[in-house]
Amino acid sequence: MDQENIMNNSDDVHDIENEGLWDGKEIKRYWSEVSDKNITYKEPFLVKRTNTTSQIAIVGANVCPIESLDYDDPQSQIYAEIFWSLKLKVFKGFFMSGVGESLFNFSCHFFIITLTLKWFQCRYYKAFAAYAGCNVVLAAAAAVLCAFIAPAAAGSGIPEVKAYLNGVDAYSMLAPSTLFVKIFGSILGVSAGFVVGKEGPMVHTGACIANLLGQGGSRKYHLTWTWLRYFKNDRDRRDMITCGAAAGVAAAFRAPVGGVLFALEEAASWWRSALLWRTFFTTAVVAMVLRAFIQYCSTGKCGLFGEGGLIMYDVSSATSTYSGPDILAVIFLGIIGGILGSVYNYFVDKVLRTYSIINERGAVSKILLVIAISLLTSCCSFGLPWLVKCISCPTDLTVSCPTVGESGNYKGFQCPTGYYNDLASLFLNTNDDAIRNLFSTSTKNEFHISSLFIFFGAIYCLGIITYGIAIPAGLFIPVILAGASYGRLVGRLFESISTLDMGLYALLGAASFLGGTMRMTVSLCVILLELTNDLLLLPLVMLVLLISKTVADNFNKGVYDQILKIKGLPYLDAHAEPYMRHLVARDVVSGPLITFSGVEKVGNILHALQTTGHNGFPVIDEPPFSDAPELCGVVLRSHLLVLLKGKNFSKDRVVSGDDVFQRFAAFDFAKAGSGKGIKLDDLDIEEEEMEMYVDLHPITNASPYTVVETMSLAKAAILFRQLGLRHMCVRPPIVGILTRHDFMPEHILGLNPQYNE
Amino acid sequence: MDQENIMNNSDDVHDIENEGLWDGKEIKRYWSEVSDKNITYKEPFLVKRTNTTSQIAIVGANVCPIESLDYDDPQSQIYAEIFWSLKLKVFKGFFMSGVGESLFNFSCHFFIITLTLKWFQCRYYKAFAAYAGCNVVLAAAAAVLCAFIAPAAAGSGIPEVKAYLNGVDAYSMLAPSTLFVKIFGSILGVSAGFVVGKEGPMVHTGACIANLLGQGGSRKYHLTWTWLRYFKNDRDRRDMITCGAAAGVAAAFRAPVGGVLFALEEAASWWRSALLWRTFFTTAVVAMVLRAFIQYCSTGKCGLFGEGGLIMYDVSSATSTYSGPDILAVIFLGIIGGILGSVYNYFVDKVLRTYSIINERGAVSKILLVIAISLLTSCCSFGLPWLVKCISCPTDLTVSCPTVGESGNYKGFQCPTGYYNDLASLFLNTNDDAIRNLFSTSTKNEFHISSLFIFFGAIYCLGIITYGIAIPAGLFIPVILAGASYGRLVGRLFESISTLDMGLYALLGAASFLGGTMRMTVSLCVILLELTNDLLLLPLVMLVLLISKTVADNFNKGVYDQILKIKGLPYLDAHAEPYMRHLVARDVVSGPLITFSGVEKVGNILHALQTTGHNGFPVIDEPPFSDAPELCGVVLRSHLLVLLKGKNFSKDRVVSGDDVFQRFAAFDFAKAGSGKGIKLDDLDIEEEEMEMYVDLHPITNASPYTVVETMSLAKAAILFRQLGLRHMCVRPPIVGILTRHDFMPEHILGLNPQYNE
Repeated sequence: MDQENIMNNSDDVHDIENEGLWDGKEIKRYWSEVSDKNITYKEPFLVKRTNTTSQIAIVGANVCPIESLDYDDPQSQIYAEIFWSLKLKVFKGFFMSGVGESLFNFSCHFFIITLTLKWFQCRYYKAFAAYAGCNVVLAAAAAVLCAFIAPAAAGSGIPEVKAYLNGVDAYSMLAPSTLFVKIFGSILGVSAGFVVGKEGPMVHTGACIANLLGQGGSRKYHLTWTWLRYFKNDRDRRDMITCGAAAGVAAAFRAPVGGVLFALEEAASWWRSALLWRTFFTTAVVAMVLRAFIQYCSTGKCGLFGEGGLIMYDVSSATSTYSGPDILAVIFLGIIGGILGSVYNYFVDKVLRTYSIINERGAVSKILLVIAISLLTSCCSFGLPWLVKCISCPTDLTVSCPTVGESGNYKGFQCPTGYYNDLASLFLNTNDDAIRNLFSTSTKNEFHISSLFIFFGAIYCLGIITYGIAIPAGLFIPVILAGASYGRLVGRLFESISTLDMGLYALLGAASFLGGTMRMTVSLCVILLELTNDLLLLPLVMLVLLISKTVADNFNKGVYDQILKIKGLPYLDAHAEPYMRHLVARDVVSGPLITFSGVEKVGNILHALQTTGHNGFPVIDEPPFSDAPELCGVVLRSHLLVLLKGKNFSKDRVVSGDDVFQRFAAFDFAKAGSGKGIKLDDLDIEEEEMEMYVDLHPITNASPYTVVETMSLAKAAILFRQLGLRHMCVRPPIVGILTRHDFMPEHILGLNPQYNE
Repeated sequence: MDQENIMNNSDDVHDIENEGLWDGKEIKRYWSEVSDKNITYKEPFLVKRTNTTSQIAIVGANVCPIESLDYDDPQSQIYAEIFWSLKLKVFKGFFMSGVGESLFNFSCHFFIITLTLKWFQCRYYKAFAAYAGCNVVLAAAAAVLCAFIAPAAAGSGIPEVKAYLNGVDAYSMLAPSTLFVKIFGSILGVSAGFVVGKEGPMVHTGACIANLLGQGGSRKYHLTWTWLRYFKNDRDRRDMITCGAAAGVAAAFRAPVGGVLFALEEAASWWRSALLWRTFFTTAVVAMVLRAFIQYCSTGKCGLFGEGGLIMYDVSSATSTYSGPDILAVIFLGIIGGILGSVYNYFVDKVLRTYSIINERGAVSKILLVIAISLLTSCCSFGLPWLVKCISCPTDLTVSCPTVGESGNYKGFQCPTGYYNDLASLFLNTNDDAIRNLFSTSTKNEFHISSLFIFFGAIYCLGIITYGIAIPAGLFIPVILAGASYGRLVGRLFESISTLDMGLYALLGAASFLGGTMRMTVSLCVILLELTNDLLLLPLVMLVLLISKTVADNFNKGVYDQILKIKGLPYLDAHAEPYMRHLVARDVVSGPLITFSGVEKVGNILHALQTTGHNGFPVIDEPPFSDAPELCGVVLRSHLLVLLKGKNFSKDRVVSGDDVFQRFAAFDFAKAGSGKGIKLDDLDIEEEEMEMYVDLHPITNASPYTVVETMSLAKAAILFRQLGLRHMCVRPPIVGILTRHDFMPEHILGLNPQYNE
């Protein structure tokens, strides 16, 4: 049973995995085939042009409290303070996985650089110049990294991780260079004051680290460990990447359970109970390490890192009693939030398509676009606070007002002592602090309605136009910011009938926006719970999420699904489309079919490998090896390459039997890292060998999943998706091979235009 | 395409569902077949005997604060107070489901009867007689309900729900009579002061209500609505039952997110994203309704119902800072908790097997067993508090000490004024209050170490011997009670090195026990979070759960999996056993295969239906209908019955074609409720019709899932399990049909004893 033992690697239960992944080449070929056929579907821009929609991300931001300046006003003192802190924290890389009972280790790094240029005198325009200049420099640095080193690092990264876990392994999506740019690009981008988050990039970072471990380290960068080779199969690699994504969310929101649920609800396409346990382990370790670092940093040793403790935006101090009118207000909040969320998705889609035209012109236009958006963001955050009046400080405060320092609720800006500028408190703060200010409880009148409206409008628009430029950029923070200001705004509008705290309105507004854009339910609910620690508000948060998701689902898809589509990643949905019920498997088979005999001529194999990009070939036994032509199984390209490399050829057309396995070890057939493994060029077949024969039986998967040609396409699609296949044979005995490509709506509707609406 | 349209009900994507369920008869036949073959596996007792492992459940309990009595002590006043409140609250039935975008309604009822016989004078033995007498009467009532009306209502109900969602529809498991007994039996059982919980029964209750809706109401009890017929298919019914189970947990623990996760992690075998959304909707409605009732009841109108608010055991007042030594103590707690949890499982298994011998003797022995356990429980809770010394009340209390009334931290019992009996505070309280007392924070020395030890020992043993008697009985409460007292005990032992609050130790102890017995992770974590509202302790709770689950997994399986096995429910595991890799599909095919021709004689069909219990038959086309014998498809028993009932017979062996569908509507083939649908006896075939022919093609599923006979059994098992099949054909063209039965380890190891360890 040697054959069976070796085939166990690719066969049996592992079949699911080994057949699962599509790489970048296949994706491009697929789209070029679609366009060759002159099918007029909306093609993704990123395939036609380059594989990079580019985008940005913020951690801290630039703070500039300026207290009364030379203003043609003789009695005012002339001084300006410019203070900005670059809070560079992102790299919390964690990885973890386990196979069987082995538990693996974990790492968490972070670094925070606080750079302060403080108390130097200047005028407003100098302050602006310094502020905008720093932003532009940081933004340009992020864009340069992204444009020249790893274009794949632009954007959120969550759609890419989602695609990988669905079985699409696009080129350099999880490469070490992407990891590097994702970390540093995100630090620079967030520091540059863009309206972007660090959450998506952290999910991508976690997945990249997991991938690095999953393919046995990186030989190119001399990061290899021998024990990692046990993960060298698709299943473990996929599990690791799921754990990495969970760890990313867990670290970004300090929400370990939320991380597990995010991985379950949004990231993973296939779920097993063992995976639940592994992600839970990963996030538990993240929680312990975060907790230790927060304790270590609680004395202020690490800049802004320790702030907020494990609960980032605590609102538990607010009284969470609510009654009929409050619920009415909350339902209104949910409905409008859902509509605004779907409108947000619509514009993100449009902007991404526009930007991809700009980005394809080359690295320089990418960088110029980033600089332009950076200048616009600086103008907004520095200019808009001038529009509002100064508000006198409340008298019953425990904190100083106006605040002097890097963060705080009451920014002085241009106002005299005893007054503060509420819009400056939101704009000229880190994004985290702005959210904390919006979520702050018992501060009903802190923000004027007009200020909230201006802030909401600005962040909503900036969020839309920022996603898509060539920097790593998360979507959570912009959505939470816009949602929280929207929620507070609604709270102010309903203040006559509702007694709910404004901080809770902000939380509910954020929930409604998140539900409206991302369309998650349980994971968002738990993440918000872990962010704010208000268990009593849970029923309302659930209600808002349900309403906004339901409303938004009537208009378009979730933002990550939209981005997946724009990027041209062939994502396989869990359910079959209705029209698939009227088609059968035969209807989507597209030719020509290339098959091998059980004992095939080396030349034929080499020719097939050279002329096609197919990953699997059916093997057919013909007389004299069988009575009638019958399907023997499917052979994989990678296994064929190993076999040809081994040169176990024979002059005659005979079955060689199992002795071929004395030449190969099971490990020779193990899955190689992406971009590794034997290439066609590595083969050195001589002319006389071309006429020799090689027995394919030992490396043939003798029991591929097959369907009968008259099977309903919907049923075949469910089988394909549930088992995570890469090839599926159509009987009798072999009519064709179905791949992911054949289940894409573009392909099916192209062949059967009658179902096209 | 009429045929296809009709077949779409059973075919296409719905195939998964329609083929999924095994009923009670099949299970019994399976086990009798296994025993016929003289295979010496541990057979479940419940199949050999009756289908009832019987067990008990508690909500409130009996409270008896007695303050100083005649005790040969002349100066003490002679009086006794007996007070007991029967807190009968269980029936919170909620159900909910949605198909597509339709959202459905929900109901939540509860009732609480508080019965107080207060301040009547007697001596201790009278008090005990009254206490034990009431308990026995209530217990006997529960046992009578259970033994005579619905034996299937005994026990937790979670294993049954789990089995249903895995595809096993045992007889009367979710019947209306079971629902009735589950509700009232649980109320009576909990009131009788047994060490049982209401959580499991509430999950079962939710599932029963969902099932009632899913099969279109109950015609027998005149509860039918026409709109319910849209749920009359397996997929929707299964979704509804998942939602019902989630609602049960959500209501029992007031933990909506925990309910969703419980349904996901423990209950459901197949998961889809649509299901996540539906369960989330269900539990959101449960949360809103619970919140409304709690607000309505906050003035004490509803007995004990409103107590604790949405957070049942709030520990958030404790300071959750911890350091190295605390973590060491917690690791110790987790390891020992895991060991104790697996020992608990071991004994529950043994006790269940012993009880099933007693229970099979008939209803009377069931009731006597319940009465015996009830007396033992009364003796323990009334007798053990005498063993401990009175403790003087702390001086810095905000509550009265000793407490007078139904619940409270400080029970007087036999102690003089100013003193309290700590063990009585635990025993003579409702289970909910006992847990609340154990979780109470800043009460370090309230319970003496010896009291905790006695309580822990008593509850541990009582919990083990109570599960299995003929009353509805949940396992959560006994495990939490034992775990919390164990945790507090460990806290006291470590008090010299650890500064963690005793209430938090109790929480961590409960987590370790839950992890050790139930082996869940994320759902327990979230349920505990929602029960106690201590987000800062989350990292430690995760750590404890991980450790205790890992430790316990080395010894045995989770308690629900064990009960499933004892009950003989053929649960299909998600992963294939290792020895299955060495077998192929052909190796497990058993029995004479019964096939039909495409156009078959009525007599043959009737004979096959009468002599076998098979649910599906392969249909084979032979000459003259095809060139060679080939598999045409699979026909279901229920569809055959409908066809025979329709009497569309012909004298000659000809294909009738699609005109048969002019006689039938698609709805005729819809899945009937359990126990309904056409029976074999309903057919009235005359003698001359027996020789006539009927065309099976129109009702044949022409594209059943097939595997080649040489496919690895592990691979076939994964296919069968992932798609939730009921039949799977083995080619070429038909070697046999594989069913759930053929993938059971008992069957496989019986045919292939060489893999038997």
